[in-house]
Amino acid sequence: MRSRRAVVHRLPASGPDDVSGVETLFDGGLDPKSVVAVLGKTEGNGCVNDFTRGFAARVFGDLFERRGAGEVAVVMSGGTEGALSPHWTVFAREDVDDAPTGALAVGIARTADLPPEQLGRRGQIEMVAEGVGRAMADAGVTGAEDVHFVQVKCPLLTAARVEDAARRGVTTATGDTLKSMGLSRGASALGVAVALGEVDVDHIDDEDVCSGFDMFSGRASASAGVELDGHEIIVLGMSEAWSGPLTIDHAVMRDAIDVASVREARERMGDGALVAALAKAEADPSGQVRGRRHVMLDDSDISSTRHARAFVGGALAGLFGETEIYVSGGAEHQGPPGGGPVAIILDRSRS
Amino acid sequence: MRSRRAVVHRLPASGPDDVSGVETLFDGGLDPKSVVAVLGKTEGNGCVNDFTRGFAARVFGDLFERRGAGEVAVVMSGGTEGALSPHWTVFAREDVDDAPTGALAVGIARTADLPPEQLGRRGQIEMVAEGVGRAMADAGVTGAEDVHFVQVKCPLLTAARVEDAARRGVTTATGDTLKSMGLSRGASALGVAVALGEVDVDHIDDEDVCSGFDMFSGRASASAGVELDGHEIIVLGMSEAWSGPLTIDHAVMRDAIDVASVREARERMGDGALVAALAKAEADPSGQVRGRRHVMLDDSDISSTRHARAFVGGALAGLFGETEIYVSGGAEHQGPPGGGPVAIILDRSRS
Amino acid sequence: MRSRRAVVHRLPASGPDDVSGVETLFDGGLDPKSVVAVLGKTEGNGCVNDFTRGFAARVFGDLFERRGAGEVAVVMSGGTEGALSPHWTVFAREDVDDAPTGALAVGIARTADLPPEQLGRRGQIEMVAEGVGRAMADAGVTGAEDVHFVQVKCPLLTAARVEDAARRGVTTATGDTLKSMGLSRGASALGVAVALGEVDVDHIDDEDVCSGFDMFSGRASASAGVELDGHEIIVLGMSEAWSGPLTIDHAVMRDAIDVASVREARERMGDGALVAALAKAEADPSGQVRGRRHVMLDDSDISSTRHARAFVGGALAGLFGETEIYVSGGAEHQGPPGGGPVAIILDRSRS
Amino acid sequence: MRSRRAVVHRLPASGPDDVSGVETLFDGGLDPKSVVAVLGKTEGNGCVNDFTRGFAARVFGDLFERRGAGEVAVVMSGGTEGALSPHWTVFAREDVDDAPTGALAVGIARTADLPPEQLGRRGQIEMVAEGVGRAMADAGVTGAEDVHFVQVKCPLLTAARVEDAARRGVTTATGDTLKSMGLSRGASALGVAVALGEVDVDHIDDEDVCSGFDMFSGRASASAGVELDGHEIIVLGMSEAWSGPLTIDHAVMRDAIDVASVREARERMGDGALVAALAKAEADPSGQVRGRRHVMLDDSDISSTRHARAFVGGALAGLFGETEIYVSGGAEHQGPPGGGPVAIILDRSRS
Repeated sequence: MRSRRAVVHRLPASGPDDVSGVETLFDGGLDPKSVVAVLGKTEGNGCVNDFTRGFAARVFGDLFERRGAGEVAVVMSGGTEGALSPHWTVFAREDVDDAPTGALAVGIARTADLPPEQLGRRGQIEMVAEGVGRAMADAGVTGAEDVHFVQVKCPLLTAARVEDAARRGVTTATGDTLKSMGLSRGASALGVAVALGEVDVDHIDDEDVCSGFDMFSGRASASAGVELDGHEIIVLGMSEAWSGPLTIDHAVMRDAIDVASVREARERMGDGALVAALAKAEADPSGQVRGRRHVMLDDSDISSTRHARAFVGGALAGLFGETEIYVSGGAEHQGPPGGGPVAIILDRSRS
Repeated sequence: MRSRRAVVHRLPASGPDDVSGVETLFDGGLDPKSVVAVLGKTEGNGCVNDFTRGFAARVFGDLFERRGAGEVAVVMSGGTEGALSPHWTVFAREDVDDAPTGALAVGIARTADLPPEQLGRRGQIEMVAEGVGRAMADAGVTGAEDVHFVQVKCPLLTAARVEDAARRGVTTATGDTLKSMGLSRGASALGVAVALGEVDVDHIDDEDVCSGFDMFSGRASASAGVELDGHEIIVLGMSEAWSGPLTIDHAVMRDAIDVASVREARERMGDGALVAALAKAEADPSGQVRGRRHVMLDDSDISSTRHARAFVGGALAGLFGETEIYVSGGAEHQGPPGGGPVAIILDRSRS
Repeated sequence: MRSRRAVVHRLPASGPDDVSGVETLFDGGLDPKSVVAVLGKTEGNGCVNDFTRGFAARVFGDLFERRGAGEVAVVMSGGTEGALSPHWTVFAREDVDDAPTGALAVGIARTADLPPEQLGRRGQIEMVAEGVGRAMADAGVTGAEDVHFVQVKCPLLTAARVEDAARRGVTTATGDTLKSMGLSRGASALGVAVALGEVDVDHIDDEDVCSGFDMFSGRASASAGVELDGHEIIVLGMSEAWSGPLTIDHAVMRDAIDVASVREARERMGDGALVAALAKAEADPSGQVRGRRHVMLDDSDISSTRHARAFVGGALAGLFGETEIYVSGGAEHQGPPGGGPVAIILDRSRS
Repeated sequence: MRSRRAVVHRLPASGPDDVSGVETLFDGGLDPKSVVAVLGKTEGNGCVNDFTRGFAARVFGDLFERRGAGEVAVVMSGGTEGALSPHWTVFAREDVDDAPTGALAVGIARTADLPPEQLGRRGQIEMVAEGVGRAMADAGVTGAEDVHFVQVKCPLLTAARVEDAARRGVTTATGDTLKSMGLSRGASALGVAVALGEVDVDHIDDEDVCSGFDMFSGRASASAGVELDGHEIIVLGMSEAWSGPLTIDHAVMRDAIDVASVREARERMGDGALVAALAKAEADPSGQVRGRRHVMLDDSDISSTRHARAFVGGALAGLFGETEIYVSGGAEHQGPPGGGPVAIILDRSRS
């Protein structure tokens, strides 16, 4: 009897262009064609002028082309503040002669190009929701409750795209390209929330995107990039049709110091070695954490996303005893305001 | 029967000049003359051009003068990165009609002016060691094992002080004023280590200061300031001669993610409400934490002390569920390289 | 025959609390009651969390109280990037037994408190315009063409002020306190433009504030502060009723490298020693200077105002051969987009 | 009669990986084999963790390989602060059927690998001096007075190189890799000074490197990179054997505001359009410019090299009316302390 098996490798990066660890995997027998996704943490500022993401993406693109890989979803997230450590997490999947036992499943989907006038609006939410459904099907994950992490790479508005809309007589949600990144992340996260039944699409108006933050997904992680016009979606969940030692669960941090929720999820999962921890972090928009003032939003020297990654990174690294953690900033509708989702992948065959 | 009692108030600060909370304490009956020390966390960068410390110190000085306080040790530490929250911790002591039960004790000492040529050398180490002994006596703490935190405010070299030494025909350890801050902190911490029996003074050469980092104190916290020529020393420990609900213990983090050691100390202390957590943090000078690379020492946009405070602040805030934590950077000889001391003060009458 | 004479002292500051130069002036005979204004350049980041302004303002307030000065307009502007040098410019005025010859004149006015719902709107524009008229009268400057620099210190919105408006059933222009600083500066600058006949008030709608940047004043400099509810206005111009060696003129830089316009103004003024140069700078909102891309608006590590002050500071310091130049950021409606006003004060009795 | 002709193209870069302008040149007929050097200004922080340099270098390497270029000296300098604009300057040379008239000449040389124990010492100085001589010969520049700019790309120490020296029983000048960058730049600049007769090699001791700053070259520009073990040297000068409309001269700024020296050089050159301006900038190590304090060395939020590039960039852009200027930081022995060399290339056929 056959089943699918997910293979996940976490590899240190000595710089944004260090893919030597992945080369070694290929040399050691990993089939390049089995790779479906890479999540990278690079050491840039994670903000507008972070070129470590593009540098890494280019080097991975060259590598995959040279090695004959298929289409791989490459998601680079900048910012390894504090003692967070730059690293790559490579997701592959293979067909094996083992009976399906229930295990981590990985699914991928791409959407059509997003018309710029739909960015940050209902149109984008619905497009992403539909794509998440397809990625779930690709993963063989049937119930929304079995989904524990959805990474969405989404487009942003450029001057050219805004002009294109104007030429066709339609308006975009904003003319500000930086702001469009937040709107795109927010709408993508709401799309995940709709797909997973966390929010009813009929309750969302265009105005709610990046405003009605009581609506959110506890399993979405979105990042915007200029290099695509549609969406790349990665679903991580549990499927009865898969086998192998890997398992996944998740927690939702209610605020930046809610380590208790993550510890509870970790303990619920039982024995196993940590393969990956994937989290979102943001400065609480209220300016407070549990009634105490924070200064992240008033600091004109360090952007609040850097503060938040460093701090939440410390909280999670203290819990896991590990600094190769994927902590990504900018968490609009991804977890409650000031909090965020945390997914945990364990290998039950190791400890 | 009479005893002494320590009173500790932790108060939020809405800015470096917000002492309204302390005013309210005085209006509510706290005797200004009972105040012996203030430890402040202000929201500056904690580095060379952090004027929030001087601003706060001036406002506290004005307040204490206006209210008729005695001489108070005012130690301002800049940097509330991540969700750390700016706050003051005010230490007072009073004589009460209660039997001594054993409790938190607070002692203070000042040293003579430090000749500039002794800064960062054996002379400073011995001067601080002697001062710590007097502060212990002032606190009524008899055994070194009863000391859990020693805060030292130490001088630095200025161009004028270096010249003064030169005029007298003697050399200083460095001519670089910024570097002198690290040397002064390091020698002060070694002075604490000597006083507490953690290091034998005969094993220390001048060259070991800021170099032989295997020698350190697990209970020292030092900060250098331009505004004094000698040392102000605050000892926090347990004394049989004191009473009241407050108790103190400490842990030594072995690295930036060693939350386990702190949790163990917290659990050892039993029930009680957190009154204060006092910690030192630094970027591991090896460039690694548990074998994983960190980028704090290579980041030319954010100083490593800011990274370290944010990250270790997150680790500790996650443990304590509290963001008013005193995390101070620059930990030469204060805990092992990359780690640092953490003192915990509890109020056993609350939970 | 009697006349008024302006006295202007430019003094170095070794830190935000160094007023020793002003103390020396007082000790040397300057009458504290003659002082009407101080313009300070402090070494903070010039942005939200710049506490050097408040620190300096407090120290000046203490000094003026101790010395028996009258009400002095104290305007602190943060940011001495590049080789710009922190300094104070003190403006005093005295009655002398000299015939009026025409010279620099200094006038001051204060407005009533600004109702929060008028901030960033026509109401503020009109209030400032009226105040500028009174400051001109105070200075004895009759024609708008004789005004060369108008400094306005204006209020901002706080959460409390926004709530106050809401309680009265009226809305404010924004609920974002940071954004309110720009709106207040913009409306103040438009108020100056109206008073000086540069813009017709009937052509301005509320929506034009911080949007219709083709309307601007070539002589306005505005900065917002939380410490006042109305406006403090300083007018610098030429008046036939004043005497003494000081003279003032101004230029309008069309962009960040338009040194030619400033050189032309300087040469037009003839011989004399530079007493003060007062300028505004900003990153060109188009993202370009003379068709070349700049990166100031995309840099998430350094705020664009710091970039702009450093760069324009270099351009002006190169021209004047002097680094004690008052370059202030945030130039909404203060000069054309990307450019800004530059006032020059010379002492014709020195060279 | 035949001669050589230099061709210099300055091209805007929309990002570190934008070589579209160079592609267009190749498509338009520029022979890839004629290209000998590229000087790039990229938009990173110009400090340790600036990956825009490596990103650009990789993209140029790919381009040159794809287009069949020869070995090209690629020197990337990070940092376009203020309104400085990211750009590439491409140097090519070709043989033409024109009589030699005297014109800009470009020469290139590479040295052998530098033994790590010689870095920052006499050995490196002599190696660079010898290489500069060969680059002059390659350019056909005979007299030292005809050399106006020498760009040296030099190696740095890595942990591995330090260990290699230790294994062979020799010591390196420093064990600090960051510090080795300054030492390598300093020794390289002194090598240029020796080659050009500005400093007598017999007067230099190892201890003078990065210490005896009164010895310097008025024409050297050095940058250290991890990607090479020897030196790449580019000499720009005037040669009687070359033809074409390009000409070069240089000035030495005595401090950060010494625009007068540059203006004098520009005026001396007569009519012509600016092709390139190449400059070094640094924060004056004395902490002062013309007796006025600057804060660049005390700012823990922005590195002094970024301050200096922005400020000197503004001074030069104000003079030239152009923001595509190559301003490079870190000027050890490159011009006097706080000052630096500025080379100017004009096209006499345009204005």
